[in-house]
Amino acid sequence: MNKQLKVLKKWLTEQKIDVAFINEPNTIAYFSGYESDPHERILALAIFAVGEPFLFTPELEKEDALKSEWPYAVYGYLDNEDPWSLIAIHLAAHRNNFSNIAIEKNFLTVGRFEKLQFFFPAVSFPDITPKIQAMKLIKTSDEINKMMEAGKWADKAFEIGFNAIKEGVSEEEIVAEIEYRLKKEGIKEMSFETMVLTGVNAASPHGTPGKRPVKLNEFVLFDLGVVYNGYTSDATRTIAFGEPSKQAKEIYATVLKAYNAALIAVKPGITAGELDKIARDIITDAGYGQYFTHRLGHGLGSSVHEFPSIMQDSTFIIQEGMCFSIEPGIYLPGVAGVRIEDCIVVTKDGCEVFTHTPNEYTSI
Amino acid sequence: MNKQLKVLKKWLTEQKIDVAFINEPNTIAYFSGYESDPHERILALAIFAVGEPFLFTPELEKEDALKSEWPYAVYGYLDNEDPWSLIAIHLAAHRNNFSNIAIEKNFLTVGRFEKLQFFFPAVSFPDITPKIQAMKLIKTSDEINKMMEAGKWADKAFEIGFNAIKEGVSEEEIVAEIEYRLKKEGIKEMSFETMVLTGVNAASPHGTPGKRPVKLNEFVLFDLGVVYNGYTSDATRTIAFGEPSKQAKEIYATVLKAYNAALIAVKPGITAGELDKIARDIITDAGYGQYFTHRLGHGLGSSVHEFPSIMQDSTFIIQEGMCFSIEPGIYLPGVAGVRIEDCIVVTKDGCEVFTHTPNEYTSI
Repeated sequence: MNKQLKVLKKWLTEQKIDVAFINEPNTIAYFSGYESDPHERILALAIFAVGEPFLFTPELEKEDALKSEWPYAVYGYLDNEDPWSLIAIHLAAHRNNFSNIAIEKNFLTVGRFEKLQFFFPAVSFPDITPKIQAMKLIKTSDEINKMMEAGKWADKAFEIGFNAIKEGVSEEEIVAEIEYRLKKEGIKEMSFETMVLTGVNAASPHGTPGKRPVKLNEFVLFDLGVVYNGYTSDATRTIAFGEPSKQAKEIYATVLKAYNAALIAVKPGITAGELDKIARDIITDAGYGQYFTHRLGHGLGSSVHEFPSIMQDSTFIIQEGMCFSIEPGIYLPGVAGVRIEDCIVVTKDGCEVFTHTPNEYTSI
Repeated sequence: MNKQLKVLKKWLTEQKIDVAFINEPNTIAYFSGYESDPHERILALAIFAVGEPFLFTPELEKEDALKSEWPYAVYGYLDNEDPWSLIAIHLAAHRNNFSNIAIEKNFLTVGRFEKLQFFFPAVSFPDITPKIQAMKLIKTSDEINKMMEAGKWADKAFEIGFNAIKEGVSEEEIVAEIEYRLKKEGIKEMSFETMVLTGVNAASPHGTPGKRPVKLNEFVLFDLGVVYNGYTSDATRTIAFGEPSKQAKEIYATVLKAYNAALIAVKPGITAGELDKIARDIITDAGYGQYFTHRLGHGLGSSVHEFPSIMQDSTFIIQEGMCFSIEPGIYLPGVAGVRIEDCIVVTKDGCEVFTHTPNEYTSI
């Protein structure tokens, strides 16, 4: 039995919780090693305080689950079967009766929860989300190694992207080039839709790459990440093509200063809110506070966005082994958008960065 | 006010429902024209029986929403603000008190629902999922035109993929080639991770493309789709490279026969279960029933999988204007996997297919 399962079983016993009923695919992979995206079908993992766990999958994925490293039972269901009555039967077969079933309240829909309640009307449903977040929070060295690799692939993606920059080439052509080269080398999945934004388009922090071409004397912003063996990277670089305006360069210098200040402040014991404030104060003092419209960063691991949020006023205490992004940005409509982002792992007395593409102001 | 909003407002009035609180991004786009993926942040659309609707977005996307075609109010929230207290304030500002708030039980998580309940403890929460499914079910001619275009792009993807087949090239290289060529031409998003599976790998209906190379005398299965202006395509072709085994070819002929029989049976008035049975009986009679492990098809539109399910025993009646997939398959472990899939729109007396790549047995 793997370590994660053992830890959760011990906790279930301590908390007097009969079973954890897990549905989030990343969390199922975390405990079972079985990776799958069931789309709208049901994938479930039942982990009991006492006894062996089981996986419940759509019938069309049962073979894959049986062939995976998962050593325990796998039950399937056909598209025309009611999965919830089958889940109820399998749960009941593993344990006579339940006083409680822990669920992921941050993932399970109200509709599915009502199905579960229908079959277990006298049962209470505590939330297992905080425990799973706490377990995932501190990464093992194996997880960190995977994230280091995912970081190297992001660096590779930047290199491909920077080489693709030339006047007239569109944002979407650069995206296509990056993903093609990575996929040809065996990368199956990006952490999210690769973002390449030119000039004023980058002033939308969540913009969509389109037909806008690279133009001389503008910035090009790249926000991208790669999934490597189930773990994600996420990084942003904003580089100059030619000579952007004085104000655009001032924005760059301000974001870099905010980034560097936050980065060197990372260590166990500081709070998430303090980190955010260090970066935000620099941007605010430079007069751009209202254009830094998001938090400083977010946790990541098997998901590209996970607990915790590195945000204003948070009293959450940073601990060794946590991984998160540092990504200050300034988005000045009509002028420029600049963001600099790396993800880091917190070490005993500082942090280590997963991506190494230089972030000093660069003009190509 | 667009037609969709008008239809829903009328229904809310008839049902004596005060407001529909919508969170699913596709559904928000359906009613508002504003497309966004908020990841773990909250995106919401409140549509009132009386009065004007509003959008609620993360602050970092507010500018995009304001620039979109959405003509009504847009409220933002910062990462360090509690979105639910803000949502409660905005709802209360639009209407004095609520006796009910309709929610999407197939999307809203238990955790978010509890937040809403906290601010509206005396309110009932009916499910709006069936009404939204019913509205999306019958496509307008504008929606059908977009799906036709999405289908043409899928045909283009097949052409690129077929041309990339040669001995030794890997599944993931072919995937990279297809997506590169489409993205260069401006396609931003595939409907799902493009699937290219060779030989026995195709015997897993939801397999993952990897390093396995194309080998002589095997099938290559392509399952892919393209998002075009917010609407999806989804199609599968299985083509021979050289001369697969006699049994593999028999499987192909059986799947094609099942596909053709279901396709010509489509017309208003037949049930989903009858369509599934027509295809399934052919496969069962050929001795492969247990290897057709999924339903015949699924609805699609702005999402690649949506209501209804074309499955065994379903009494759901097919109607003109519905769009769904027909995708029988046989997955014989160790031998071969064959699936043939097209999506169609139901017409007055039959159906029209969105993808036109020939599906007769083809060897290249």
